[in-house]
This record gives sequence, C-alpha cells and structure tokens, in this order.
Amino acid sequence: MIDNGGNRMTNTTLSHLECPKCAATYDADQVQQLCTCGSPLLVRYDLEEAGKRLRKEDLPDRAPTLWRYKELLPVRDEANIVSLGEGMTPLVRFDRVGAADGFDNLYMKDEGTIPTGSFKARGAAVGVSRAKELGVDVLAMPTNGNAGGAWAAYAARAGIKATVVMPTSAPVITRNECDVAGSDFYLVNGLISDAGKIVGRAIAEQGWYDASTLKEPYRIEGKKTMGYELAEQFGWDVPDVILYPTGGGVGLIGIYKALRELQEMGWIGDKMPRLVAVQATGCAPIVKAWEAGEKASEFWNDAMTVAFGITVPKALGDFLVLEAVYDTNGCAVAVEDDKILHAQRRLATLEGAFLCPEGAATYAAALQLKEQGWIQAHETVVLLNTGAGIKYPDTVHPQPVVLNPDDNL
Amino acid sequence: MIDNGGNRMTNTTLSHLECPKCAATYDADQVQQLCTCGSPLLVRYDLEEAGKRLRKEDLPDRAPTLWRYKELLPVRDEANIVSLGEGMTPLVRFDRVGAADGFDNLYMKDEGTIPTGSFKARGAAVGVSRAKELGVDVLAMPTNGNAGGAWAAYAARAGIKATVVMPTSAPVITRNECDVAGSDFYLVNGLISDAGKIVGRAIAEQGWYDASTLKEPYRIEGKKTMGYELAEQFGWDVPDVILYPTGGGVGLIGIYKALRELQEMGWIGDKMPRLVAVQATGCAPIVKAWEAGEKASEFWNDAMTVAFGITVPKALGDFLVLEAVYDTNGCAVAVEDDKILHAQRRLATLEGAFLCPEGAATYAAALQLKEQGWIQAHETVVLLNTGAGIKYPDTVHPQPVVLNPDDNL
Repeated sequence: MIDNGGNRMTNTTLSHLECPKCAATYDADQVQQLCTCGSPLLVRYDLEEAGKRLRKEDLPDRAPTLWRYKELLPVRDEANIVSLGEGMTPLVRFDRVGAADGFDNLYMKDEGTIPTGSFKARGAAVGVSRAKELGVDVLAMPTNGNAGGAWAAYAARAGIKATVVMPTSAPVITRNECDVAGSDFYLVNGLISDAGKIVGRAIAEQGWYDASTLKEPYRIEGKKTMGYELAEQFGWDVPDVILYPTGGGVGLIGIYKALRELQEMGWIGDKMPRLVAVQATGCAPIVKAWEAGEKASEFWNDAMTVAFGITVPKALGDFLVLEAVYDTNGCAVAVEDDKILHAQRRLATLEGAFLCPEGAATYAAALQLKEQGWIQAHETVVLLNTGAGIKYPDTVHPQPVVLNPDDNL
Repeated sequence: MIDNGGNRMTNTTLSHLECPKCAATYDADQVQQLCTCGSPLLVRYDLEEAGKRLRKEDLPDRAPTLWRYKELLPVRDEANIVSLGEGMTPLVRFDRVGAADGFDNLYMKDEGTIPTGSFKARGAAVGVSRAKELGVDVLAMPTNGNAGGAWAAYAARAGIKATVVMPTSAPVITRNECDVAGSDFYLVNGLISDAGKIVGRAIAEQGWYDASTLKEPYRIEGKKTMGYELAEQFGWDVPDVILYPTGGGVGLIGIYKALRELQEMGWIGDKMPRLVAVQATGCAPIVKAWEAGEKASEFWNDAMTVAFGITVPKALGDFLVLEAVYDTNGCAVAVEDDKILHAQRRLATLEGAFLCPEGAATYAAALQLKEQGWIQAHETVVLLNTGAGIKYPDTVHPQPVVLNPDDNL
C-alpha cells in the first residue's frame, strides 16, 4: 500500500554528491545542479552501511515498487516520497520469437507497465520526491514528451509547479499528460535541444529548479532501479547482454551505476552484462563516437527517427554512456527506422508485446548483433522496452474493413 | 521472472463449472460456453483444499502478478500460462484530493499500469491461458476496444488466431493493438451489441471459440484477482466502499466472487465492502434496474457516453452485477459526462494520476454519494481505475502556445 501520510525515515545511506569528471564533492542536502566544471553530478551512498541496513531477504516483504530499495535512494523522510506505485516492472521471456530468430534466452524488461506508460516515471518519482524534500516549489524542463508527461504528473502530486517545453513533433498524447496535470507547457518548432535553450534562458531569469536531463542529480537514481530490479529478478545474477535505447542515456548510466553499487555491496559477483547503446541511424551520435573510440560525442545535425524519444543530438551525459559501454565490453549500434517498425510488429505478432519504437529498436539491434556473431544464441539477452506502444499511434497503420450491423464476416 | 518453459503443475483446485441461475454443473476440462439455460457459467474450486495448498505467508515470495493466486485460478499446467506480467497493480492513496473534497481514506486501484494499459489484460491472460489449455486454436469476440486489444495480444502470445469486431467509435488506439498483434479485426457502424451479433453469426457458422464477455467462464477468473489483490494490499481486510465503472460488469462480479471465496477460506472476515456500480447517464441500464429494485436490466436505447468502455446497453451478466450490489448493501449510480471529465482533470491536477474516463467516473460518483451522505468522510473508499488515461486522447484538449527557438517563455 502506498501511504504518503507517514512520518518515518527511509534509512537512506545517502552520503554526498560527486563529480565524475573533476571529483569535486557537494552537499547533497542543498539544491545542486551541475558541477562548476559543467559535468552532471552523481549521488554517492555509504554502501557498507547500506549492506547492513538492507538485506536481500528483506525485499520479498516489501511492496513491488522501486521504493523497496529506499536505503539506496536519496530521499530521507518517507513523507517526501511522491509515488504512484512505479517500479518492479515485469521481466518477460520471449520464447516464441526467440525460437524463430535464434535466441535461447531472450527477455524484455517492460517499462510500458508503469504510471505514465514510460520509464520516465522512475526518474520523475525519485527526482520530484527529492526536489520536494529540498523545498523546491517550481521546476522547469525540456522534453521529447514522455519525461515531460511524467514530471508534470509527479510534480502535480507533490504540489510543485512545473513548466515543460517540448518539440511540436513529440508524441501528441504527451501533450495531454502535461495539460491534464496542470503544468505550464509549451511547444517549440525545433528539437529538444531548442527546447533546452528556451528553458535555460527562463531558468537563468527566474531562478527555477532545472529538471533537465542530468542537470539535477536525482533522476538517474530513479532510473538506476531498473538495474537493481534486473539483478533481483535474475536471482542476484546479471544477464549477458542488456540492449538499451539511448537518447539522453540516463537509463543506461543508471543501470551501470546500480550494478557497480551492488558489486560493491557484494550482492552480485564480478560479472557485468555487456551494455549496448542502441540508437537510430537518423540520430546516432553515441554510435559515431563509439566507432571512433572517442570519449564524448558530437552534435548530430538534422536528427530524425520514428523512435522519437531517442532523438537527442547531443547528450549531456554522453561521456558516462560511453564509459559504461567501454567498461563492460559493450557496443553501440544504429538501426534503420524500417527495421525498428518491423521489430515492433514481429514482437507484437509473436509475443503479444506492443513495445514503443525505442524499445523495438533494441530488438532490431539484437538481430543485427546476432548476425554479426557479437551475440551468441545461448546468451541471456535483455531488451529494455522503455515504454508502451500505445503512446505512439503513428507507428501502426491499421486499415480494417468497416461493416454494417447486418453484414457477415 | 516469467518463465513459460516449465512443465510444472499449478496445483489449482479447479473443480467444475456451475450455472448461477439453474445450478446445473459442467465439466471444466471440456470447452464450455453458456449454460443450456442461457446463463454464464461460474468456475468453482475446492476451497477447503485451496486453503491447504496456499497459505497467506507463501505470497510474499511470489512474483507480483495475478498468477500468485494460481491455486485459485483455472489453469492446470504452468506451461499453459500466457503471461505478460499482469497484476499486482498499485493501490495509491489520494491524500491531496481527499483533503480537498472530504475523504479521509481515499484510494485508487490503478489498472492503467498493466500490459495493454487496461484491466482487460487480466481477463485475457487467464481466458487465453485456459483456452490454450483446452486446445482452442481460433477465438472471436466483439469489444468496445480495450478487451479486443488485450485478447488480440494474449492470443498472439499463445499462438491462437483471434477475430475481433469493434464499433467505429471505439478508442482509436485499440485498433493499433488489434492490428499489430496480427488479429483479424473489423469495425462496425454500430454499438458493441451490433458487433456481438456479427460475431455470433460467424461463430455459429465457423465453430470458433466464443470469447465474448461471460460467454466463456474464465475471463471473470482473471478479473476476480483484483479482489484478491485488494484484500492482500489492505492486509487481508476489505475497504468500506469499492466504486466500479460498470459496462459488462465482469470486474465487479469478479471482485464479489473473489471476496466470497476468501471468506469461505477464512482469509478475510464477514465484512464485505459496499459495491457501487458506476455508469454514465448516457447508458445506465444497471442503475435504472437498481432504482426499480429489479433483478435484471433492460436494453438501453441510444447509448452514448465519453466513458466509451461502459457503453454496454444490456449486459449478459446484469443479474450477477445486481446481485452483488444488493447483497453488499451497495448501490448503482449514474454520472454526467461533464462530471466525469471534471473528475479526470481534478485527479490529474491534484494527484498526478491520469485515469481513463471510466475510472474517473468512479470519482464523480464518489462525490455524488458523499454529498448524499451515502459515503462518510472516515470510510475507506477505493476507486477502481480500469485503464490508462493515455488510451483516450479525446478526453483532453490542450491548446499550448507554440514557440520558435529564439522565443522566450
């Protein structure tokens, strides 16, 4: 049961904030945005203490939400938890498509079954909760749609005023989410990078809390719970490969961070999954950087793909994504839009799972990597489906026969 | 972890099928549709044995899906379970709107966070699993949209061919769900009752399995798990009032059946929640029957409401819905469409929860019943939100300002 009325403490082991670029540290109990060096900040915990306060065997008695890992999340007072019941999403085996396409152990982690229908709810739940705890009353952000919908919802639940700016080409249903939750929201004739500049100017003038991707440290803490959940769902083991649709890359950075934390706590062994950053050929800055062996990406011009959520020409956390990929012997792969739509339909027809195009891109990438021999048939492979297919009406074009009541089939 | 590859038995205590009208019994291990008297059939278990095979304390170690209650579900062989991870949906407290509107203990059971974005997934998961177990290879059904989307998905996963007929005015996104899952699907210029007649004629000719609401006995077994989950989430107690948006009424019948089963097993006490059948004033046959003290409803002409899922002019299980309402000292309430849309926005703005219009109707009804004194402020009240607001783009009409990249907020 989700009870926001309590007055208990979470027993979090939150310690401080740390810059992954220049190693500067910051007080986590003050509002912080980027490091003075321009890098995103990461949240650090006392992991030795965490291993004492939380034991694996405590987990089954906890509700199936991401708050089951509260000792490893940044919120101090349970009364500040803003939750709609997000997390512990299903890990679904894909046996039929696996048999057809040569994967013996294929799984989908399904973030479509979460409030707001996308994994963005994780970042919003933890990000908004911590913003509430730190006394934030107004926040603003650019978005490709789903994050805006999620942050608008959780901000509403927290009583925080939200301003959201999204491209006109973002999924239309996410406009409804922002509107119905009462946020101030705007469209822009441009990309998320243009929305970001508009938000940046407004924040500089108004002093609002900047909830842009990685410009506050807590969204990643919500996203990392996908890593905890995967480890728990695989019985405190990890799969061989995780394919992740990569726009801003926060989820991939988060999963990597989570698994490293669990290693430090001794909850999982030394093995790491090979992390794969999946992008679309129409916007593949991370893939280009990885192919060149670079540590950071360059702005991608004329970005465009049907997998709209990953249309991010230049991610602030690109260096963290690339580090996670290099460090796990992973890779970065770009897939064509028609392969994405083909993968989406194939998974729906054979498995009944209607993935968002970003999620479907991971299966298109898995097929490519299998063909190249980079993925072996026996390996355990996880497709990270970041959202529900129902949020993207334009990816399917049914043309049904229309009957009159007296007609027969 | 959802593993369909096992060969274990579920330990179900499935006994037989029984007609609630004429008390005839049927073999559950043969395909059955309606009773020869025309009534839907109900599934019966050996509940004494169930209490031995399943103990409350076993549940925390089971995955958070509806299959945690497998001893009380009809599938015999785990290999026949067709699951996308459905069930154990969040029970979310509504403290902010409760404080504003005078409910001390208001909750939403959120069926938006389930595969296919609606509670129809429960009926489809159990219904399709049992159909698979009984050797069905083709099924057909009429639908107001969401059930069709769900059955198309689960049938695809099971390798069963599905034919679906829905009104042209059903939510457009459900067409995508039927199409992408590879079902044969058709639109009809008419209501679900017209779709039902078309399906009925095709079934009579082709001998397909009839998956229409209550014409097979197992959909209700999936829906009833909402009742088990509520009892478990309230610590094996029940709330005072459950408000349920009522079209075909299967969920309400199912919750009632589940709680009676738990009582017989001694898992909950004698108290039953007062069950409220919520309808729209544009289609309120159950309300009309309840107000007249009747045991069955009459066909509602010119049915129309924004809560499209409950546009059911005459439900086959109307007598079971009314029995559940009478028997629990519940009631039936009709709400205006504008009150539904107002409730939808109020819950989104204050709680961050974007309910489908059918779910929002339950809050409009709760406000009416509170004003009439039928619900008291201190009572524990559950709104059953049957689906995600994102599936209904036409209920929200945002008119955002459109900026150019150089504009300021």
